[in-house]
Amino acid sequence: MKLLRINTKTRKFSFEEPGPYAGLGGRALTSRMVLKEVPAKCDALGPENKLVIAAGTLTGTACANSGRISVGAKSPLTGGIKESNSGGQFAQKLAKLGIVGIVLEDKPADNAPLMTIVITKDGVTIKDAGDIAGKYTYAAAESLLSAYGDKAALMLIGPAGETTRQAASIQFTDPEGRPARAAGRGGMGAVMGSKRVKAIVLDDAGCGMVKAADPEAFKAASRKWVDILKGHPVTAEGLPAFGTAILVNVINEAGAFPTKNFRGGRFEFVNNISGETIAETIEKRGGKTRHGCHTGCVIQCSQEYRDAAGKYLTSGFEYETIWAMGANSLISDLDHVATLDRTCDELGVDTIEMGCTIAVAMDGGLIPWGDGEAAIALLKKIGTGDAVGDYIGNGAGATGKALGVTRVPVVKNQSLPAYDPRAVKGVGVTYCTTPQGADHTAGYAVCQNILKVGGDVDPKGKDGQIEISKALQIATAAVDAAGLCLFVAFAVLDNADGVPTIADMVAALIGAPFTPDDVVNLGIGVLKDELEFNKAAGFTAADDQLPQFFTDEELPPHNVKWDFTAEEMQAAKVE
Amino acid sequence: MKLLRINTKTRKFSFEEPGPYAGLGGRALTSRMVLKEVPAKCDALGPENKLVIAAGTLTGTACANSGRISVGAKSPLTGGIKESNSGGQFAQKLAKLGIVGIVLEDKPADNAPLMTIVITKDGVTIKDAGDIAGKYTYAAAESLLSAYGDKAALMLIGPAGETTRQAASIQFTDPEGRPARAAGRGGMGAVMGSKRVKAIVLDDAGCGMVKAADPEAFKAASRKWVDILKGHPVTAEGLPAFGTAILVNVINEAGAFPTKNFRGGRFEFVNNISGETIAETIEKRGGKTRHGCHTGCVIQCSQEYRDAAGKYLTSGFEYETIWAMGANSLISDLDHVATLDRTCDELGVDTIEMGCTIAVAMDGGLIPWGDGEAAIALLKKIGTGDAVGDYIGNGAGATGKALGVTRVPVVKNQSLPAYDPRAVKGVGVTYCTTPQGADHTAGYAVCQNILKVGGDVDPKGKDGQIEISKALQIATAAVDAAGLCLFVAFAVLDNADGVPTIADMVAALIGAPFTPDDVVNLGIGVLKDELEFNKAAGFTAADDQLPQFFTDEELPPHNVKWDFTAEEMQAAKVE
Repeated sequence: MKLLRINTKTRKFSFEEPGPYAGLGGRALTSRMVLKEVPAKCDALGPENKLVIAAGTLTGTACANSGRISVGAKSPLTGGIKESNSGGQFAQKLAKLGIVGIVLEDKPADNAPLMTIVITKDGVTIKDAGDIAGKYTYAAAESLLSAYGDKAALMLIGPAGETTRQAASIQFTDPEGRPARAAGRGGMGAVMGSKRVKAIVLDDAGCGMVKAADPEAFKAASRKWVDILKGHPVTAEGLPAFGTAILVNVINEAGAFPTKNFRGGRFEFVNNISGETIAETIEKRGGKTRHGCHTGCVIQCSQEYRDAAGKYLTSGFEYETIWAMGANSLISDLDHVATLDRTCDELGVDTIEMGCTIAVAMDGGLIPWGDGEAAIALLKKIGTGDAVGDYIGNGAGATGKALGVTRVPVVKNQSLPAYDPRAVKGVGVTYCTTPQGADHTAGYAVCQNILKVGGDVDPKGKDGQIEISKALQIATAAVDAAGLCLFVAFAVLDNADGVPTIADMVAALIGAPFTPDDVVNLGIGVLKDELEFNKAAGFTAADDQLPQFFTDEELPPHNVKWDFTAEEMQAAKVE
Repeated sequence: MKLLRINTKTRKFSFEEPGPYAGLGGRALTSRMVLKEVPAKCDALGPENKLVIAAGTLTGTACANSGRISVGAKSPLTGGIKESNSGGQFAQKLAKLGIVGIVLEDKPADNAPLMTIVITKDGVTIKDAGDIAGKYTYAAAESLLSAYGDKAALMLIGPAGETTRQAASIQFTDPEGRPARAAGRGGMGAVMGSKRVKAIVLDDAGCGMVKAADPEAFKAASRKWVDILKGHPVTAEGLPAFGTAILVNVINEAGAFPTKNFRGGRFEFVNNISGETIAETIEKRGGKTRHGCHTGCVIQCSQEYRDAAGKYLTSGFEYETIWAMGANSLISDLDHVATLDRTCDELGVDTIEMGCTIAVAMDGGLIPWGDGEAAIALLKKIGTGDAVGDYIGNGAGATGKALGVTRVPVVKNQSLPAYDPRAVKGVGVTYCTTPQGADHTAGYAVCQNILKVGGDVDPKGKDGQIEISKALQIATAAVDAAGLCLFVAFAVLDNADGVPTIADMVAALIGAPFTPDDVVNLGIGVLKDELEFNKAAGFTAADDQLPQFFTDEELPPHNVKWDFTAEEMQAAKVE
């Protein structure tokens, strides 16, 4: 496995041995490189920042659900370290090309032409992006796939990234070549845009799977791994049937479904946007209720959502997006919600950040509550040079400042996801303490708090929340380093063979001992790297807290408040 | 003395005895009322906030330089308590009308017509503002003075306040009826605009001076007071000759004149904008180098600046404005700087906040560095409904967020004034710890650090800075409560008779003992009220610090850094 460094200013590149980074993959690689090579106080959009794109340790092998791609850099949104990961076809092809990570370094002039980077087994070609510059991601992807072949995997930005908006995502193509998968959070698309890279194209023709050092042991462990995933009701039944949208009714029922910019925990029109309604709508319109975002996925939580005319509208239509574009903005028309999802993918912008931003804009009177068409029009201003689009594209914090709205649900300037921390306190601890800014995926305590997977902790109490958040943050960091989809956690948390089987796969892959303790230590190491970076960037305990209104206001229907202090939060961080 | 409460929703008013507020004036009255009557966590632009407009204790008497007006509320800019004070004719007329404070309460609908409030000895009239709505302040003032007589004193807002921009000022008329005096800081104009009040007109016809309980003792003390002011070189010579602009060369020489958004301490083109150049230019064009902002001022630091054609351009052209619009944005054309000052007065927006905002906008590439005409055009977008104007009008913090600029020199979201805290550390302590957000007037340690008035403390060292800032914050709060111009401090700090003479005037006025200790205790009480409000609003020690770049970057030419921690800062706050 090699590292590919590309200087975006000189357009020179080199392949090198991983050296000090040997053995690291995914988030472990991106966070270590960012810590070691990016000055913590640099301008996130300046030449000193680096965009690190890494395949997981298990990626490219036959291991099920190991196709996540990690993207890391200093975040222009939070000012801290960032790892954002995505599904899609990119990671597996990258690993098959023998590349563990691509590092985009330096930057051209701000108005330099955008470029396309094409990587095949024969080498690297860097060329001007030409007429895909400025294009929405679906059209750009279509153009690239027609030039480089349907089997290429793409990583690309839209107008939001090109104009370095702080909420810009990086989009990745799925097996059908649709750029519907996103490394959404923290503005990684802005970093890519600052380096004037519109797209990276991977063609792995002629490359085989990544080979294990001990093929027989690997085969045995990876078979057991599939059995574990297929043996748990969430990964075997719930997610395949309804995707993550199954959570709409579950979280609403729990009174933790943030409504009208986090004013309530239940949404009046929840039935319009529930997973059950979505599945029914998809079936009626001839879409797909099951779909894998990458080859080798046995969970298949994605889907193909069609419009009323039966035409493809969007995919990867996640619970968090449905919440963000629906309940949080009081938008109750499912097609509007789906169109907002598609619009975010087209622009290359984070759906969670945009959902909170739209609600803040509604709070500021910029557009009416619940007006889906106005919300779509608002998002389309991003990247056009329009000043409203400029601040909307910088997220909820910027929009609050521009409009004078102080009710802005962010931690470290990143918008809160779809679980009200007052009614799911474990995930609130994660929002506060993960180095990533408010992020549910960094320590998904919804498991123990609501789903009762891996334990049972009262979601509204304080007891046990810090402990589960901390343990989950460690486990998640390891999962992200391995390149595994986070949803494997549902099965792993409830099956004592889960972590040992992951360790067995890694051991067989690298041909050296790797124990369950090593998995835990891997996660701890990642978090330590990230916390060290953030400390150097100037973060303190004061940054580890929710906005004041969560402490001041009761959340209906359970009338619960946030009741942790920033000091208490410190115990959730590894030392 | 009465309190006049006006409900801006019902347009009903009442005069009442001060009751629990008896004996309080100026900042002591505004801060006590805001603490007692405004919920700390309310929406600063909502019905629960109150705008308190108070004359000082000594205002309306023959005491020289006692004509300051205090305006207090919860600040929409900082989220904390605010007192912003101004010169002009308003305070004296208010006191002569027998009113110690006007309290604007509740609020009409957001789109309700703007109103004008007229107060005479016969009562209060509230009417629709009619065609002055939307007007710039000079035209609005001219219209009001032609309707209510040249001798009326005005308090009014411009388009920035009408559209509740967070940097909106309240403008006050000078003896010539020009709205060139401003309660600039903290967005008090937005609070007035939220209550849909365009202007308050005071006509004191038929009212006499405020009478002292012991007229002879008062006359003796106030004569001594004039002698003290006329006996100090700063108040008797420096300020009268050059106004506050005398500081341009002094602070530049000290290497503390923030240049290019606080990147350096000296400005290449300082001679273009110095006090000496301004005085010369004014004389050549037939303006006035000396001018008092209110009747009874013996310092006369104001001036009348004319354009190249000899036509009045601006007045109250302060050092901080010259710095903000000049060096900090690299604008070196004096007429551009003067036009920016006038433009801020016309729009009703704080010059210091706008100076930092323009520099942040330049840092973000919105307009070129040093381009005065572009800066003027940028400001004129405020209040027009233009989205750029919307965020520019919300200040440097909002502009930084909209443009993705992280170099934003604010404390508590309020822009730093014209003294780099790395090279004048005493004033840096004040920026961090005053409840008001970054504000030089809250504890002007430039005295001991640079001017060597009231002591001599090395501006670049840490020793003694906390002590002088704390003492000055206490003294300033008392000065602001008395309604005295802050510039009396130069004389008071160097004259042992200063504080006793102020105490003597108050004692003679109220006919009861008032000692120098009472002056100090008055100041401490004001600060305690303000800190209590801010604590209830959610402020913590983490809010008492400068942006990180002041700690990280050396300021040329002395290559000094900020080296206080937020914890050290706590000692500068009264307990």
